[in-house]
Amino acid sequence: MASRKKDPYAQLWEISKTTAVFESIHGLLGWDQETYMPEGAAGIRSQELEQISSLIHKQRTSPKFVKALGKLIDLKTGEIFDAELSEVQRAALHEWRRDYLKAAKLPVSFVKTLAKESSSSLHAWIKAREKNAFDEFAPHLQKMVTLSRKKADLLGFAEHPYDPLLDWHEPDMTTAAITPLFNRLKIALTSLLKEISFAPQIPSAFLEAHFPPSKQLHFGHLLLKAMHVDEKISRLDESAHPFCSGLHPTDTRLTTRIHPDNLMSNIFSVMHEGGHALYNIGLPTEQFGTPLCQSSSLGMDESQSRFWETRIARTLSFWKHFFPMLQHTFPEQLSGVYLDDFYRAINVVKPSLIRVEADEVTYSLHVIIRFEIEKALIEGTLAVKDLPEAWNEKMRTYLGITPSSDKDGCLQDIHWAYGLFGYFPTYTLGNIYAAQFFNVFEKEHPDWKERTARGELEFVRAWLRMHIHQYGRRFTPQELVQRVTGERLNEQPYVSYLENKYKALYHIS
Amino acid sequence: MASRKKDPYAQLWEISKTTAVFESIHGLLGWDQETYMPEGAAGIRSQELEQISSLIHKQRTSPKFVKALGKLIDLKTGEIFDAELSEVQRAALHEWRRDYLKAAKLPVSFVKTLAKESSSSLHAWIKAREKNAFDEFAPHLQKMVTLSRKKADLLGFAEHPYDPLLDWHEPDMTTAAITPLFNRLKIALTSLLKEISFAPQIPSAFLEAHFPPSKQLHFGHLLLKAMHVDEKISRLDESAHPFCSGLHPTDTRLTTRIHPDNLMSNIFSVMHEGGHALYNIGLPTEQFGTPLCQSSSLGMDESQSRFWETRIARTLSFWKHFFPMLQHTFPEQLSGVYLDDFYRAINVVKPSLIRVEADEVTYSLHVIIRFEIEKALIEGTLAVKDLPEAWNEKMRTYLGITPSSDKDGCLQDIHWAYGLFGYFPTYTLGNIYAAQFFNVFEKEHPDWKERTARGELEFVRAWLRMHIHQYGRRFTPQELVQRVTGERLNEQPYVSYLENKYKALYHIS
Repeated sequence: MASRKKDPYAQLWEISKTTAVFESIHGLLGWDQETYMPEGAAGIRSQELEQISSLIHKQRTSPKFVKALGKLIDLKTGEIFDAELSEVQRAALHEWRRDYLKAAKLPVSFVKTLAKESSSSLHAWIKAREKNAFDEFAPHLQKMVTLSRKKADLLGFAEHPYDPLLDWHEPDMTTAAITPLFNRLKIALTSLLKEISFAPQIPSAFLEAHFPPSKQLHFGHLLLKAMHVDEKISRLDESAHPFCSGLHPTDTRLTTRIHPDNLMSNIFSVMHEGGHALYNIGLPTEQFGTPLCQSSSLGMDESQSRFWETRIARTLSFWKHFFPMLQHTFPEQLSGVYLDDFYRAINVVKPSLIRVEADEVTYSLHVIIRFEIEKALIEGTLAVKDLPEAWNEKMRTYLGITPSSDKDGCLQDIHWAYGLFGYFPTYTLGNIYAAQFFNVFEKEHPDWKERTARGELEFVRAWLRMHIHQYGRRFTPQELVQRVTGERLNEQPYVSYLENKYKALYHIS
Repeated sequence: MASRKKDPYAQLWEISKTTAVFESIHGLLGWDQETYMPEGAAGIRSQELEQISSLIHKQRTSPKFVKALGKLIDLKTGEIFDAELSEVQRAALHEWRRDYLKAAKLPVSFVKTLAKESSSSLHAWIKAREKNAFDEFAPHLQKMVTLSRKKADLLGFAEHPYDPLLDWHEPDMTTAAITPLFNRLKIALTSLLKEISFAPQIPSAFLEAHFPPSKQLHFGHLLLKAMHVDEKISRLDESAHPFCSGLHPTDTRLTTRIHPDNLMSNIFSVMHEGGHALYNIGLPTEQFGTPLCQSSSLGMDESQSRFWETRIARTLSFWKHFFPMLQHTFPEQLSGVYLDDFYRAINVVKPSLIRVEADEVTYSLHVIIRFEIEKALIEGTLAVKDLPEAWNEKMRTYLGITPSSDKDGCLQDIHWAYGLFGYFPTYTLGNIYAAQFFNVFEKEHPDWKERTARGELEFVRAWLRMHIHQYGRRFTPQELVQRVTGERLNEQPYVSYLENKYKALYHIS
């Protein structure tokens, strides 16, 4: 390849790397806010985040960047001018263009308004939630719905106004693709849940003990070590809500939440966030600054966390190795417990009001409720004032329980308050991808149970890295699914997995 | 005041506030680097710091800023155009102009070169120090000397090339003012040290015990609470070298270093950094974004930390209240120790090789050695290759000991490696200011011993806030000294304090 041909690409990369570095600073500000920042610093922290966000938006749409990108790819048609560019470079250019076309459609004034209104809506939500006062939050939510609909209009759509919002988080995903899939899933899950509700309950009282926080945190570190989450480029801290923030490929910040009375909350959080962390760590580091050094989508990211949390950390074989270690850490609480009883207890299915505490069977029902509601809000078939009623009605129908207050109902999640519409479905897409991937993983590693029962986890990480992590955004989520599994997106593996596992656990024939 | 007259000032403030917010982000990046950042993230952290620094330099010299400033003050003469501006506003304008004139003299290319060379020099220093190989560091140090001399030339000077470097950290301070002052101080301190060396030694073996880190950290928090360092807007963490970083008025980050075998290292560090923290917290918050919400100088900042560390935490009255609490925290190690013996032991004078571990009497001798050497390096009367010899010779003459290796000699401090010339003198200036301030404080609070002996410290903080903190940069350090004490800068109070205290301690008549 002639070197002069590489120059415009290198130039584009250089500009984009500067943006990526600012994005990593934005990530640090966010991480610090949730972990160590003194509470009194919140006011200026908002300004810090606003200034960096605004800088990033400017960088992404700067004339300098657009000129550099336009030299390599036709911004209108997507045609790449230089036939000698590598496959990797071509993929990067397509993703650069994808990002630019989205960013360019949003005027700076709109981005600022959205940021400002989100911030004020977020504060209103925090207060309204504390006071269980939906009415006080409603006008802010109305603004968020209106602005999101405006965002959809600015981004443009052919079929449904919810499409561009969904696509923002999950490239190329559409309302038309998700709706029937979620409908089938809803039928399968509600049916399974009904069967479980008739089965005898699983005893789990031994989990209701006091587990000292420092020992819990120690066990969390032990799990991350077993997962090969490299301590040189990551760290684990505590926060009110667990998260994983990949600041850049050599700095991944994980958090967990420690409840002294809830052992498994920390363990599943650590394995979940550890799955996200391995994805971030496994991205093609050498591509830092290009879109390829980013995860393929929110759903794909969630597939990695759920793979580890549900397909590894909720299995009997995993605990064959780790339960004795857990007993060693908490001898008073667990020494008299049998492994099999422990395994069954950590997989108890019980409809509950709160999404983040849901078991595997009910989890996606929580997500589907939110999807149906936000889709209706955006298309205008549901009014904000009718939200609590719609929420409670769906909870009753799908999960058989009704929140006694909006605090534990439609006010529980931060997403809408922050203007995040189209985000919720990615949680369930992640579960579906994970199930599809797991079937292939199981075929390639038929001895996975024996190996995890020996505490081996490196081969799991290696498989995920080889098939998913190393590509970053080189393939869209749907391309990746097709490539790894040879099949299109479908919920059947997820449903079969849940049915097989939970019918066996609850002795349902 | 007519509102249209306020507009240009508000406009200038707004621009400057944006810069201050970016500076606070720079502060967070630095804090995180020394506390929680995974080691593998160091490479990209350098880029993050570089980009934010460069952004800040651009903001400080942007045409928009210069235009806004130039509307209010004549950049050449310092004449303020609007006679109706308040005293506070006039002071802010003078400081804005001072900062701008400095920044504008340094071309962006020079700032970038200095940042790049400092970074590479810093890495070379770390390695050379580990290997005790001065020769490997020498070419980098030569570059730092050359660049610093170049910086002096760019900034300009009337008398001595060291002046603008000193003024960079301590506004209006000159080589001509410091040299005789340090000479007199050197004579007084070496003479006192000699007398002490002939006196019987003070027993301190009971301090050589194991003090569990978690308990030490707990005691650190207790001290900060007693000092009224507000936890809502500050926090204490651990780092390799203690520091205090005031990100902005509502976010102060302190660190300490915990040696399991050195109890007092943590205690003095916490009191020292706590003094810096109170200064930052006490700045005029409402002035955030103007230069007035900054400390007056490095020396003034150091006067606050040393005031607390030496004039409060090294006194018998302070420990009357806190020693029983310390004994309660470490009963095994300290229950049999008398308060008076403890007080004497923590004030032992013993020449040592390392500045940061020095006692009160030898501390400034370490600083004076560095001042004399760096002044000679900048004026060209000492060659870099002759540095180790010059260092060891001065150590022998002033302190009576000689380093057995450069690692514990001229390679011990980070400052020169990072291009910080003119910084060291501010450590001793801080001690001198503190002594001058203390004399006034003692006159106004003749009962300070009784009150601190009851654990009262709030009146100390209040006094410092009223006389120093609340003004920020409204007055230069010399103006502040004059204002608070009615005297000019002079070393006599510092010398008298040391002579009186240590002659009594060592029973020297």
